[in-house]
Amino acid sequence: MLSPSAGSDMQQCIDDCLACYRTCMQSAMNRCLEAGGRHVAPEHFRLMMNCAEICRTAADFMMSSSPLHARICAACADVCEACGDSCEQLGDMDDCVEACRRCTRSCQQMAGDRMGMPFSGKGAQPGAAAGPM
Amino acid sequence: MLSPSAGSDMQQCIDDCLACYRTCMQSAMNRCLEAGGRHVAPEHFRLMMNCAEICRTAADFMMSSSPLHARICAACADVCEACGDSCEQLGDMDDCVEACRRCTRSCQQMAGDRMGMPFSGKGAQPGAAAGPM
Amino acid sequence: MLSPSAGSDMQQCIDDCLACYRTCMQSAMNRCLEAGGRHVAPEHFRLMMNCAEICRTAADFMMSSSPLHARICAACADVCEACGDSCEQLGDMDDCVEACRRCTRSCQQMAGDRMGMPFSGKGAQPGAAAGPM
Amino acid sequence: MLSPSAGSDMQQCIDDCLACYRTCMQSAMNRCLEAGGRHVAPEHFRLMMNCAEICRTAADFMMSSSPLHARICAACADVCEACGDSCEQLGDMDDCVEACRRCTRSCQQMAGDRMGMPFSGKGAQPGAAAGPM
Repeated sequence: MLSPSAGSDMQQCIDDCLACYRTCMQSAMNRCLEAGGRHVAPEHFRLMMNCAEICRTAADFMMSSSPLHARICAACADVCEACGDSCEQLGDMDDCVEACRRCTRSCQQMAGDRMGMPFSGKGAQPGAAAGPM
Repeated sequence: MLSPSAGSDMQQCIDDCLACYRTCMQSAMNRCLEAGGRHVAPEHFRLMMNCAEICRTAADFMMSSSPLHARICAACADVCEACGDSCEQLGDMDDCVEACRRCTRSCQQMAGDRMGMPFSGKGAQPGAAAGPM
Repeated sequence: MLSPSAGSDMQQCIDDCLACYRTCMQSAMNRCLEAGGRHVAPEHFRLMMNCAEICRTAADFMMSSSPLHARICAACADVCEACGDSCEQLGDMDDCVEACRRCTRSCQQMAGDRMGMPFSGKGAQPGAAAGPM
Repeated sequence: MLSPSAGSDMQQCIDDCLACYRTCMQSAMNRCLEAGGRHVAPEHFRLMMNCAEICRTAADFMMSSSPLHARICAACADVCEACGDSCEQLGDMDDCVEACRRCTRSCQQMAGDRMGMPFSGKGAQPGAAAGPM
């Protein structure tokens, strides 16, 4: 679904963040709520919703070519890691675990690449604006 | 990018909404801001941001299997249509026009399908929660 | 917390939407999750989250002086009404019921005032941008 | 507008984040777009929108009593500081400067208070869920 110009690491990280947002949101609001019990324990359920939220926010920063995106991606990686761990302990949440792990790695890379120059780095590639999802 | 269980019309509409959210957000915050002039005229720019916002909200309602999603999809279709028209008049915004048109149709269908039973319809298919983006 | 210029009906509706967003979000993620049982029944919990989401989106449309805000406010009023009813039936959710009822009325008024001219009406008052919350 | 139980530092920080979200969003989408010129320079305008976004996300984490909120508040403080500086240099943005400065301090305090125990700290006070805005 990427345009030819959108082959960069950042477009991939946006993909991973939006996929993790969707997987966590759909899982929390469907599987977890319908299963009940430990799936709606406050600690787990909050983490699912917080993970969905920060993934979307990190995507937003990258979509707008924010020079501050590395800061948000670093925070996003931490939340995704915690959410992936919580899903793994709960069991039967394989797609969430996978989405969280992939997003953690992607955001860690994005945070590290830009870490030394958070205010001077340019965001999305020229032409990236043309890239549909 | 759909899981086997996510073949429904609703999963397709979520795809279309998230694609339109991303295209409008990236175009507004990159191409429009960098081009300036008519691309940042208040009427046009607001419509781009409003379209991104309501597309994401419509996706959210569908992702959470809300029985009220038809109401939001109907509003989303109107905003997407207005945004597509504005992008077409402006020119050089083909990907936005296309994303808005596709999302308009998808949301109109979703609104119509459920229109007669906004409070009783069930949302996403069972298993849809497993669907990564 | 309103600036002198923010006395309009629209600024009041933004206030009511953001208050309802906050009350529903905090109640769902704290009281409901901690109480469990009927408070996390999928129908109720989804409505709480959907209400928080559409209230924030309606506020967003009004904050950006969108001429399409009436459309979103109309949808928001319906969701708030359904959420208020659900909270009332559940009991012990007085602050949510009150916030939903107030936001329903405010959004209905905003939808009605603009209904006849959704594309031509001007949004927030001049100077409203200066209004902190 | 705070309930008796909502007197904590965290409720104050939620107030400051939501006020900064609103001020930045309204200013960007009204004053900046209508003024044009340097007010819609990509660097400035993106910062306004990014600041609105991360303020809302930080509020969201605190509203849901996330033990990870300190991480997000620290990132939010950095974005608010950059946005406040950009508004100050631009001039005629006093309300934004003030909202950003207040939110920076509030988020720094929240980040610092919890910095040593980001995963074990409890979020909002008991009963805070009852607090309307």
